[in-house]
Amino acid sequence: MTKILIIGGVAGGASAAARARRLSEDAEIIMFERGPYISFANCGLPYHIGGDIEQRDALLLQTPESFKARFNVDVRVMNEVVSINRQNKTLTIRNLETQENYQESYDKLVLSPGASPIVPPIPGIQNSRTFSLRNIPDMDKIIASIEHNQPKHATVVGGGFIGIEMAEALIQRGINTSLIELSEQVMAPVDREMATPLHQEMQHHGVDLRLGVALEAVFPSQQEAADELASVDEQGIELRLSNGDLLETELLIMAIGVKPETSLARQANLSIGELGGIQVNSQLQTSDPDIYAVGDAIEDPEFVTGDAALIPLAGPANRQGRMVANNIFGAGEHYKRSQGTAICKIFDIAVASTGLNEKTLQRKGINYQKVYVHAASHAGYYPGAHPINLKLLFNPDSGAILGAQAVGKDGVDKRIDVIAVAQRAGLTVFDLQDLELTYAPPFGSAKDVVNQAGFVAANSIKGDTRLCHSEEINNPNEQQIILDVRNPAELEKLGAIPGAINIPVDQLRERINELPKDKEILVYCMVGLRGNVAYRQLLNHGFKAKNLTGGYKTWLANQ
Amino acid sequence: MTKILIIGGVAGGASAAARARRLSEDAEIIMFERGPYISFANCGLPYHIGGDIEQRDALLLQTPESFKARFNVDVRVMNEVVSINRQNKTLTIRNLETQENYQESYDKLVLSPGASPIVPPIPGIQNSRTFSLRNIPDMDKIIASIEHNQPKHATVVGGGFIGIEMAEALIQRGINTSLIELSEQVMAPVDREMATPLHQEMQHHGVDLRLGVALEAVFPSQQEAADELASVDEQGIELRLSNGDLLETELLIMAIGVKPETSLARQANLSIGELGGIQVNSQLQTSDPDIYAVGDAIEDPEFVTGDAALIPLAGPANRQGRMVANNIFGAGEHYKRSQGTAICKIFDIAVASTGLNEKTLQRKGINYQKVYVHAASHAGYYPGAHPINLKLLFNPDSGAILGAQAVGKDGVDKRIDVIAVAQRAGLTVFDLQDLELTYAPPFGSAKDVVNQAGFVAANSIKGDTRLCHSEEINNPNEQQIILDVRNPAELEKLGAIPGAINIPVDQLRERINELPKDKEILVYCMVGLRGNVAYRQLLNHGFKAKNLTGGYKTWLANQ
Ligand SMILES: Cc1cc2nc3c(=O)[nH]c(=O)nc-3n(C[C@H](O)[C@H](O)[C@H](O)COP(=O)(O)OP(=O)(O)OC[C@H]3O[C@@H](n4cnc5c(N)ncnc54)[C@H](O)[C@@H]3O)c2cc1C
Ligand SMILES: Cc1cc2nc3c(=O)[nH]c(=O)nc-3n(C[C@H](O)[C@H](O)[C@H](O)COP(=O)(O)OP(=O)(O)OC[C@H]3O[C@@H](n4cnc5c(N)ncnc54)[C@H](O)[C@@H]3O)c2cc1C
Ligand SMILES: CC(C)(COP(=O)(O)OP(=O)(O)OC[C@H]1O[C@@H](n2cnc3c(N)ncnc32)[C@H](O)[C@@H]1OP(=O)(O)O)[C@@H](O)C(=O)NCCC(=O)NCCS
Ligand SMILES: CC(C)(COP(=O)(O)OP(=O)(O)OC[C@H]1O[C@@H](n2cnc3c(N)ncnc32)[C@H](O)[C@@H]1OP(=O)(O)O)[C@@H](O)C(=O)NCCC(=O)NCCS
Repeated sequence: MTKILIIGGVAGGASAAARARRLSEDAEIIMFERGPYISFANCGLPYHIGGDIEQRDALLLQTPESFKARFNVDVRVMNEVVSINRQNKTLTIRNLETQENYQESYDKLVLSPGASPIVPPIPGIQNSRTFSLRNIPDMDKIIASIEHNQPKHATVVGGGFIGIEMAEALIQRGINTSLIELSEQVMAPVDREMATPLHQEMQHHGVDLRLGVALEAVFPSQQEAADELASVDEQGIELRLSNGDLLETELLIMAIGVKPETSLARQANLSIGELGGIQVNSQLQTSDPDIYAVGDAIEDPEFVTGDAALIPLAGPANRQGRMVANNIFGAGEHYKRSQGTAICKIFDIAVASTGLNEKTLQRKGINYQKVYVHAASHAGYYPGAHPINLKLLFNPDSGAILGAQAVGKDGVDKRIDVIAVAQRAGLTVFDLQDLELTYAPPFGSAKDVVNQAGFVAANSIKGDTRLCHSEEINNPNEQQIILDVRNPAELEKLGAIPGAINIPVDQLRERINELPKDKEILVYCMVGLRGNVAYRQLLNHGFKAKNLTGGYKTWLANQ
Repeated sequence: MTKILIIGGVAGGASAAARARRLSEDAEIIMFERGPYISFANCGLPYHIGGDIEQRDALLLQTPESFKARFNVDVRVMNEVVSINRQNKTLTIRNLETQENYQESYDKLVLSPGASPIVPPIPGIQNSRTFSLRNIPDMDKIIASIEHNQPKHATVVGGGFIGIEMAEALIQRGINTSLIELSEQVMAPVDREMATPLHQEMQHHGVDLRLGVALEAVFPSQQEAADELASVDEQGIELRLSNGDLLETELLIMAIGVKPETSLARQANLSIGELGGIQVNSQLQTSDPDIYAVGDAIEDPEFVTGDAALIPLAGPANRQGRMVANNIFGAGEHYKRSQGTAICKIFDIAVASTGLNEKTLQRKGINYQKVYVHAASHAGYYPGAHPINLKLLFNPDSGAILGAQAVGKDGVDKRIDVIAVAQRAGLTVFDLQDLELTYAPPFGSAKDVVNQAGFVAANSIKGDTRLCHSEEINNPNEQQIILDVRNPAELEKLGAIPGAINIPVDQLRERINELPKDKEILVYCMVGLRGNVAYRQLLNHGFKAKNLTGGYKTWLANQ
């Protein structure tokens, strides 16, 4: 009889426990959770705060009792594991209700302790109006603070997915909300120009977005010529930002990221990786073969490079938990490299990504090319089509897919999923051209966005198109001219790139002599499609040219 | 200078023309279209009839003038090619406006003549109330008939996607509609049990669905003790069905399928394939290397077997048209095998499929296993989640993906797209377990439907689960008993499989002695998930068991 102890009772831990029981009736399985709940939907927390998920209970997928009944697992909530004693293969556990410590021995140990919100040592940050969000009690506290203090203004620090979801939740509750982000963009997994529509969407919905600023200090509110003795609790707080701004607020959510929970692992001298996560081999064993680790606490090998990455997402945690149970019973399964496929809803739009982004490719010195496609989520003539903005990163020689990002109101999840599968399977951009995807007018296009991205990328590799990017068209050299092939009405309404001359694509053939043969013509249209028509015409008429990928839309997002 | 003639000005033809021009400015390109329009959205026709697409113009993506301006293609509408003269490489064309014939020579010829609706020689079918739908004039005639005759009742013959879309369109216009289908199910690409929810959806929206009946004859209406001289035009028609029923109706849409347009190809002695489509090689050349053919008119090699298949869908037509242009200019590209990925909206639900269905696997004698998964389109605790019913067919040894089908209100397109990419890339059901798909509560689940299908299929291949299907549980032998592990309230509300005993999964451990060890226990729950928990428990307690894949839901759909 194997005795399996599991630390952490949520995504990775509960999945491991459930699968372990399905694999063996006679294993003894104990799951320790220091919090009061197991198997809860962390990912749903912001949506309960915002009101979309009405019932708090909906977030509790299992209870210790239901887990016992179904899986015969001894679930111990409010029990914190305080140390791992590898020599004698025991744990020391503190019962947080009785404050007593006790021991439990194991044959196999699974660590799924998750990650904890990063709260930097900013002066004044420890106060009764400041929260972070990781679990049900955190959520309860935020809701209690809102209900008790009825804040008119809240501030979220951090523009990752939790920060964004919290800003949306607060706005939905009618609270004016500022979001403060140190970098020049929200949603670090995508590149800056892909974040531009997110910024617009947030501002459009009333978020006071402050990019490129940090929170430096928190003070009790000065606003109401305050009674010096009045507490933060009564009067709210004031924030000092790195740009010198002062911001009165009544609720502060810290959401600048999470760090792997490694205190137990460190104390037990398990190997820690370069990024601070627990190091595991491909079978998800730590440096001690009887101890497995999964989820937010570990480092995963990133798909393109195999380099260590922190991928604090629920999908990997769930699947790793299941795999560890398999491996405990000898399956010998290997966790594959991780693409970090992710998505976030931002009011009415979605942003998603898979693989590496351009920033990372640059940082790692990996050779890449990029294309942008803007196409409709489904046939444009059928109601409800919305543009999808897709960025595809690939190896300019082999066409291997390096990463993809997409933004839009509809169908963003589908396109990134499709590309994620293609990347995982080792398909190239050439293969994207041939993908046979579902098409009927309400669902797609005869040539889907993903096929189009394949065409554009393949054209670039084959030399059928030379691509131009915003950086180049913003700084044309003496030997380059800029040609806008849109209709004059579009230029008038939407503006144009400085210095461009305008010949609409449908007049180009007859007016081609207006263009110089000795210069390179940087062509653009709204998205790149007419630019491609014009580009090919110019090329076949003996001109030198390049087509701005993504067109004016991407250029604008880059400004 | 290459002279390229193209027959057919819609999906395949217009795509070939546009791409050919992008590849060469000096090629002479003439596109012949016997109808009055080019580049129209065939797929949108039913939605204009039903009113979803309000503007008729929205269906016309290009005109001869716009095509000339952008692509410098000589577009000749109302010009029917009447013969191909391969010896001297010319076409004979009839100008349908002047009724004059003329010749045009070619270097390369592209056939994209499409397919034509099958109208069987049913007595009386040639009448002024009977239509089929392929192009804009067909649509105009149907709308004119509706507007002129104000029918209270219409009949659609054929339950393929065009028939279904037409039934929906007519219902949307407030017309009572009968749909007559010879087989026992609509949507032949999916298997019968997957069509059950479609039947329910259509009936729920008021379609009078008559399965397993054929149209045998059409008469002038007898209804209103009619003036013998009154014409069909004035009084409508009466249908005689194969089951003896008579059906008064005022509008009849024939939508029993299409057949490849091969008259020109046959007359020119080009090879015709076994299914009656034009035969092409992988470069899309007909038996005459200077003549290419694409689209609905050709036979494609089916993905799993390589056998010939007719795949009359817009995606393939568009991509083949583009590829032919590439090949005319020497690219030497190969058209890959076709999966026939397709989707159809049926009122509020969607049905989609890729690869082979079970009927075809059986007919072809291909070894397969199948699993059914019912899971939510996104996290169940986030509002708006709807069940997806997914059927996955795979090789029971290698796990190669043979085909997939899905039905549901939301996210069906995404799941079939994901599996279509996986199949095309040669991934197996084992790989489906590891797919990293976008997850946030509004978009998916930490373990997506597709991952779950991978788990279930992999379990079956590895021997972790033995699966049972409806056929078996309907006819248990002496050595089998049926165990329902749902809660009593579910059985009461929804019924149960005849002969089943009931022990709720969460009581199974304590009541396991109620079960016999010498019999095989056929376990089921609502969808298969709790059945899996119970199955594994039974197995690990030394019982013989099988789990009904898809559970009671799939069983019901099979009755
Ligand atoms: C607000 C929010 C929104 C999110 N949204 C998404 C999303 O949309 N998509 C997505 O993919 N991911 C999302 N995530 C991330 C996702 O929830 C995590 O990736 C996932 O839960 C990680 O699983 P885990 O098992 O590693 O850790 P957790 O689920 O955090 O579980 C770890 C548990 O271990 C317990 N624990 C730690 N140390 C001990 C100890 N010493 N003794 C006993 N118990 C201990 C903790 O109390 C904790 O409950 C979100 C997370 C949050 C907080
Ligand atoms: C109502 C309807 C709904 C559809 N919905 C979908 C859908 O949702 N999804 C999907 O994938 N597909 C759908 N399709 C199918 C899709 O439209 C076809 O697969 C696609 O149009 C095929 O392209 P093609 O170029 O082969 O033929 P077509 O687009 O039909 O073009 C062929 C053209 O050639 C012309 N022609 C034929 N012979 C001659 C000649 N001798 N001389 C001159 N011209 C000639 C014809 O007049 C015709 O216009 C639908 C079709 C219809 C009719
Ligand atoms: C609730 C929880 C314990 C479920 O664990 P689980 O039982 O392993 O997972 P699921 O309910 O998804 O079931 C998956 C199992 O059902 C099986 N299954 C699914 N559909 C099936 C079907 N139709 N037929 C047969 N089996 C099916 C799968 O094969 C798998 O079983 P296996 O591992 O034995 O192969 C765990 O997911 C959890 O705690 N989740 C909440 C926390 C969380 O994930 N938070 C972050 C996201 S918000
Ligand atoms: C309208 C029609 C002529 C368009 O033909 P097309 O110009 O080849 O196709 P698209 O407009 O989709 O453009 C695709 C081209 O734009 C390029 N493109 C698309 N997005 C781009 C971008 N962002 N940047 C650069 N190029 C882009 C593609 O690479 C491709 O060019 P290529 O073939 O030179 O590589 C043809 O699709 C048609 O007739 N359609 C209607 C009929 C029909 O399909 N009916 C059935 C479905 S309802």
